[in-house]
Amino acid sequence: MDNKMMLMIPGPTPVPEKVLQAMGKHTIGHRTAAFSAIAKDVTAGLKWLHQTTGDVLVVAASGTGAMEAGMVNFLSAGDRVIVSDNGKFGERWVDMARAFGLDVDEIKVDWGKPLNPETFREKLEADTEKTIKAVVVTHSETSTGVLNDLQTISGYVKSHGALMIVDAVTSLGASPVPVDEWGLDVVCSGSQKGYMMPPGLGFIAVSQKAWQAYETAKLPKFYFDLKAYRKNAAKDLTPFTPPVNLYFALQAALEMMQAEGLESIFARHERLTRATRAGMQAIGLPLFASDESASTAATAVLGTDVLDVEKLRKFVEHKFDIALAGGQDSLKGKIFRIGHLGFASDRDVLTGVAAIEAAAIALGHQPPSPGAGVAAAAQVLG
Amino acid sequence: MDNKMMLMIPGPTPVPEKVLQAMGKHTIGHRTAAFSAIAKDVTAGLKWLHQTTGDVLVVAASGTGAMEAGMVNFLSAGDRVIVSDNGKFGERWVDMARAFGLDVDEIKVDWGKPLNPETFREKLEADTEKTIKAVVVTHSETSTGVLNDLQTISGYVKSHGALMIVDAVTSLGASPVPVDEWGLDVVCSGSQKGYMMPPGLGFIAVSQKAWQAYETAKLPKFYFDLKAYRKNAAKDLTPFTPPVNLYFALQAALEMMQAEGLESIFARHERLTRATRAGMQAIGLPLFASDESASTAATAVLGTDVLDVEKLRKFVEHKFDIALAGGQDSLKGKIFRIGHLGFASDRDVLTGVAAIEAAAIALGHQPPSPGAGVAAAAQVLG
Repeated sequence: MDNKMMLMIPGPTPVPEKVLQAMGKHTIGHRTAAFSAIAKDVTAGLKWLHQTTGDVLVVAASGTGAMEAGMVNFLSAGDRVIVSDNGKFGERWVDMARAFGLDVDEIKVDWGKPLNPETFREKLEADTEKTIKAVVVTHSETSTGVLNDLQTISGYVKSHGALMIVDAVTSLGASPVPVDEWGLDVVCSGSQKGYMMPPGLGFIAVSQKAWQAYETAKLPKFYFDLKAYRKNAAKDLTPFTPPVNLYFALQAALEMMQAEGLESIFARHERLTRATRAGMQAIGLPLFASDESASTAATAVLGTDVLDVEKLRKFVEHKFDIALAGGQDSLKGKIFRIGHLGFASDRDVLTGVAAIEAAAIALGHQPPSPGAGVAAAAQVLG
Repeated sequence: MDNKMMLMIPGPTPVPEKVLQAMGKHTIGHRTAAFSAIAKDVTAGLKWLHQTTGDVLVVAASGTGAMEAGMVNFLSAGDRVIVSDNGKFGERWVDMARAFGLDVDEIKVDWGKPLNPETFREKLEADTEKTIKAVVVTHSETSTGVLNDLQTISGYVKSHGALMIVDAVTSLGASPVPVDEWGLDVVCSGSQKGYMMPPGLGFIAVSQKAWQAYETAKLPKFYFDLKAYRKNAAKDLTPFTPPVNLYFALQAALEMMQAEGLESIFARHERLTRATRAGMQAIGLPLFASDESASTAATAVLGTDVLDVEKLRKFVEHKFDIALAGGQDSLKGKIFRIGHLGFASDRDVLTGVAAIEAAAIALGHQPPSPGAGVAAAAQVLG
C-alpha cells in the first residue's frame, strides 16, 4: 500500500513524529544564540547517552565519516593497529585503516560468530614492545546481528595501553555503552540508528587519553579535525556550517530518550530482541547469532531448504508493507535481518513476527504450529 | 517577535515550505527502489544545475567537506597548487591544502578586492615545467561579497593543463557556473545556499580530466573517496548511508529550480543584487565590493563614522526580526552582509532595505533623503 511502509531494517530506523516535526522547522542561522542553546543542550544529552564526562563531538557525516574521524585524529601512517572483522562493518574498518596507511593486524572471525576476547588478550600481552597503537572493534555488527564483548576486550586494551576505538553505530542507544566505565577512548556512532533520527549526523566520543594521542598523530585531516570541533563546542559552536535541521531533530530525539531513561531504553531493546528471537524459533527458522552474542539492534535469521529468504523479504514487503533487510555480500540470499532498534515498540515486534510467520507459511514453510511465532513473541513481551 | 526571524544571511538561506515538508516525510530505506528513483532524479537535476554532462556526486557533509573531497581525490602530498585567497574561504582552502601537505603557492589579494586573472596567467605561463598541478579558486567569496572572474582564470588554467578546482558554494544556483563550457574540473558546493535547502549535503562535479588525475593521486581517503560514490551513483545508490530526508528536500528544491529555469534564477539574483546595492547607496552607506565584482549571493556594506555596523545588525534583528550577517575575522565590526540568494524574492530585498534604512536613521545616520533607499531598490526591481 502506498505510503504505508514500516521500517524494520537496522537503519535508517523509524523516526518519531515529534522528531520529524522538529526537523521540519525553518532553518536558523548557526552563529546565533538560538542555535548555540540547541548545541549546548545536545552536547549535554550526548554525554548522558554515552555515560561520559568527556567530549562527544558532532560531525556532518554518516557513521562511516564518524569512524574516519575516529581514526585519522589519533593515528599516524605506519602505526600498528588491531582491527577486528567479523562482519561487513569490521571489514570496512580494515579497508579504511589500510586506505590511511596503517599497519593493520587483522583479527578475522567467521561472520555470525562473536569476537573472542582471548585472541585480543594474547596479541596484546605478546606485544611487550608496545607497538600496537590502537584496537578497533565493531560493538554491534549490524551485518550479522552479533554483539561483541566490548567490555572484556576493552579491559585487555586498557591493561596494554593502546587506544580502544569503537564502532558503536548500532549499539549506542540500544545497548549500554558506558564510555567512562569501560574505558573506551574513541566511540563513533551515527544518527539513523538508536538515536531515532534520519541519517546525516555522526558522533565521536573522545577520552583524555585519545586527546593525548591526538597531539602526536600525523594523519592529515581538515574537515574531520576534531580539535577544531572541540574548540568550537566549548563555545557551543561548530567549525563548519552544521546541518541545523538535523540538530533540531537530535534535540527532540535526545529529549525523548531522556524522558524514557537509559535503563528503560536498554530493557526495551533487550525485550524486543528476545521476543523476536523467540518468535523466529517458534516458527522454526534458525537464528544466525547465538543467544549469548545477540545484538539488540537486529536479528539475523537463516533460510531453510524450503524457505528462500529473498522471497520471504519480498512477500513481507509487498503484502504487509514491512521493510526487512537482506544479507550483505557473502550472506546475500542466506539470511534476512529484522531491525528492532531506536523507535521500536512491542507492537512493532509483534507485527513483524506475525507478518514473517504468515509469509513463511504462504511460501511453503511448515511451522511446528501455526501462530506459534506470535504466541512466543507475545509471551516474552509479557 | 518569537518565531518570526527572516534569514538574510549568506547561508543558511530560507527554505521553501515545499522543501521543508518534503524533508519532514518519514525516512525510507536507502537500498530500495524508492530511494534509487530519488537518487536518479536528483543526479539529473544536479547535472542540469551544473550545466554538465559529467558526474556530479553527493556527499553527506558541509561545503567544507565537499571542498576536501575536491582536493584529496585528485592530488598527492607535495603537489604544487596555486590557492587564491581574497577572503575567509580562500584562506580556509590555503589551510586545508597545507593540512594535506600540498606545496601551496598562494595568491593573496586584499579582502574586498577581486582576484586579478593576469596574476594567474603570469604564474601559469612561467610554469613551463608544468609543476603546477591545480589551481583553487573561490568563485563567490561569501565573506566579502566579491565574485571572482572564474571564467577568465579557468581559461588560463585550461591552456596550462592544471586542474581547475572551484569553490562554488555561494555561486551555484545564484550565478552561472557552466561547468563544461568554462572547462571547470572540480566544482564544490553545499546545500544551504542557492539550493534553497538546509545544510548537510555537499556536491562535487568532476570532469574527465579530474578522473584521470584521480588515478595517480595519492592523498589518503576513504569517506570522501569519490570513485566509490561514482561507482554507486551509476546504480543510483550511495556507498554509505545517505541523509535520506535531505535527499527528499534536494529533490523538491531541484524541482522548484527547474520550474523557474536557470536563466530566470540568475536574472533574479542579479536583480536582487543590483536593488540591494542601489538601496544601500541611496541610504548613503558605502559598498565594500565594486559593481564589477559584486557577488549575487551577498552584499557587504561598510559602516560610517556615525553608524556602527554591529549596532545596526542588532537593531535590525531585534526590531524587525531580520538576521543579517556580520563581518568575519579582520572585517568584524567593519562590514555587515545582506544575503540575497536562494529562496529570496523582490519582496525580501525591499523589506531588507527598508529595515536597514529605518535602523540606520534610528541610530543617527542621516540618509540624503529619508525613504531614498527603498525608492532606489524599488526602481531596480521594476
